[in-house]
Amino acid sequence: MDFSKLARPNIRSLKPYEAKEIPCKVKLDANESPYCIDITPDKKVLQRLNRYPDPETKELKKAISKTLKVNSDNILLGNGSDELIYYLIITFGGPVLYPVPTFSMYGIISQALGEKNIGIPLNKDFDLDIDKMLATIKKCNPKLIFLSSPNNPTGNCFSAESILKIIEASKGIVVVDEAYQPFSSEKGFLPLLKDYKNLAILRTLSKIGFASLRVGFLIADEGLINEVNKVRLPFNLNSVSQAMALEAFKNKDVIESQIKNITSERERLFEELSKINNVSPYPSEANFILFKTKNADIVFQKLIKNGVLVRNLSSAVKDSLRVTVGTPEENNFFIKALRKSIGGKA
Amino acid sequence: MDFSKLARPNIRSLKPYEAKEIPCKVKLDANESPYCIDITPDKKVLQRLNRYPDPETKELKKAISKTLKVNSDNILLGNGSDELIYYLIITFGGPVLYPVPTFSMYGIISQALGEKNIGIPLNKDFDLDIDKMLATIKKCNPKLIFLSSPNNPTGNCFSAESILKIIEASKGIVVVDEAYQPFSSEKGFLPLLKDYKNLAILRTLSKIGFASLRVGFLIADEGLINEVNKVRLPFNLNSVSQAMALEAFKNKDVIESQIKNITSERERLFEELSKINNVSPYPSEANFILFKTKNADIVFQKLIKNGVLVRNLSSAVKDSLRVTVGTPEENNFFIKALRKSIGGKA
Repeated sequence: MDFSKLARPNIRSLKPYEAKEIPCKVKLDANESPYCIDITPDKKVLQRLNRYPDPETKELKKAISKTLKVNSDNILLGNGSDELIYYLIITFGGPVLYPVPTFSMYGIISQALGEKNIGIPLNKDFDLDIDKMLATIKKCNPKLIFLSSPNNPTGNCFSAESILKIIEASKGIVVVDEAYQPFSSEKGFLPLLKDYKNLAILRTLSKIGFASLRVGFLIADEGLINEVNKVRLPFNLNSVSQAMALEAFKNKDVIESQIKNITSERERLFEELSKINNVSPYPSEANFILFKTKNADIVFQKLIKNGVLVRNLSSAVKDSLRVTVGTPEENNFFIKALRKSIGGKA
Repeated sequence: MDFSKLARPNIRSLKPYEAKEIPCKVKLDANESPYCIDITPDKKVLQRLNRYPDPETKELKKAISKTLKVNSDNILLGNGSDELIYYLIITFGGPVLYPVPTFSMYGIISQALGEKNIGIPLNKDFDLDIDKMLATIKKCNPKLIFLSSPNNPTGNCFSAESILKIIEASKGIVVVDEAYQPFSSEKGFLPLLKDYKNLAILRTLSKIGFASLRVGFLIADEGLINEVNKVRLPFNLNSVSQAMALEAFKNKDVIESQIKNITSERERLFEELSKINNVSPYPSEANFILFKTKNADIVFQKLIKNGVLVRNLSSAVKDSLRVTVGTPEENNFFIKALRKSIGGKA
């Protein structure tokens, strides 16, 4: 029995997101926080393991509501932002528009769902090619536009002016994916939610210390939330993640100070990378740095041999690797390993 | 902005699964186990909260492999079986065929994805109408057939002979949803996996004590698993649920003895229900009993007033309520409450 023939045509050619674990001493490949905050699930949760989770995630919505100063009715919780991207595309369909390179799941999920997806190359400064974006919006009337800002893997924020133009020009939903916003000097788009009904924002706990829990949230107009909620699985967020995310929100000060460490380390890492021959880092507003290097594929492999796992992005951005900002010790280890890997003495 | 107009047409009329919490002293509405097993997540997990979960869920697959005597390559883990139903329909598309009444998510998810779904009424014994099923398979060539056995909400196992006929007649995938199999006296379909490549089986931890964790698993031919795995989100099962499910598998003996308690209580509950005037329970192979009663809607409301929440299924099976088997104390409380509710003295 040929299952690939039985699958829908769009599935046959689908290449799933690659997330194989490569064991390495220092792991700087997945834009995780290098810091683990010591929290435990509330005992009440462990005494009710036999019960289904709260389908409405009420307590967690309250905590997010308080922190982000948005109404609970404007929040939808997901098993990671990934799941919310699925739900958005299931609800509104395609065409789905996004710049490239960007977070690969927008394209992968669009293809999995058989929806047309259009990637518009960023300009040479890694900013939105606003003319092409606007022309495509006019021509293709995308139902959904995904803008990751700060953008993964390039690290920069897109021009706020361009994003606004896109929101104003679009008859569909514009999703600003702010997974990396906590590391940025810019304010982000939350304050604009009231002005633009077709604006939706994605946030996550994954980059600020809790990737394990899979907690993402969509913030948008109540009407939009209600529509997406129709396709949400009733128990999509397990009880333990709900409870632990609640604990996470009690540690705002710790999280804030870790973010400060990470952004100051990012600046130091940028300086260090700039000093290395044949290495050019791109400025970053996120918790990672994309850098250009000769023979990126070889350097990537040598880095693994030297004990550091980064992300090889040379297929998306020529000759480029992406390194997540680690602890000061991890960053020092990485810089040494990179010098060795480039020098050829792996 | 009218978001329902922006949504795909199939979403507009979609009624999501209703899972609102109604607080009640005794909760017998969701087919949860009444017993909570005392497990805690491994400390190693709590020390790595900042890291993404194992995308391949290797350890958990090993544990399932050992318990169910299937190969790890034949297993796919989901954030509850619900998510696996989504993935199956995303992968293979429709038409989706199932008997009615049955677990409502097959229909809801099909509609969310815009796939044609066909419900064939069960016969008067709540068994498969095999002639109509076979005729529909011939006529509509469904890509997926979902058979919940034991069936929710009717409680019975479908005729194994009929299921086999359906598997043999179908060119698509036949998914036997064995969520309630642990409570059944029948063997289930796992031993037949080797004989039928188009057979897939769903199992879950939700009914045997761990609904909170959201752990479901699909067991099928490796080729089928690989195809569905393409549309799976890479980190769909959070780290804590993975770790706690591993702990759960270490408690097989406890789980087994709880299942024995539940099935013997089910038989007692059946006897008790049979004694009540105007109440007719249907025999059950699951951890719940469907029973017929006059004025089901009123009895349902009176039961809530008397402190017991059951599931009102009168829209699916005329005049019927579904009660989950609880602890002996809960079952006694329920029987008293039901007598009161029917007697009119709420």
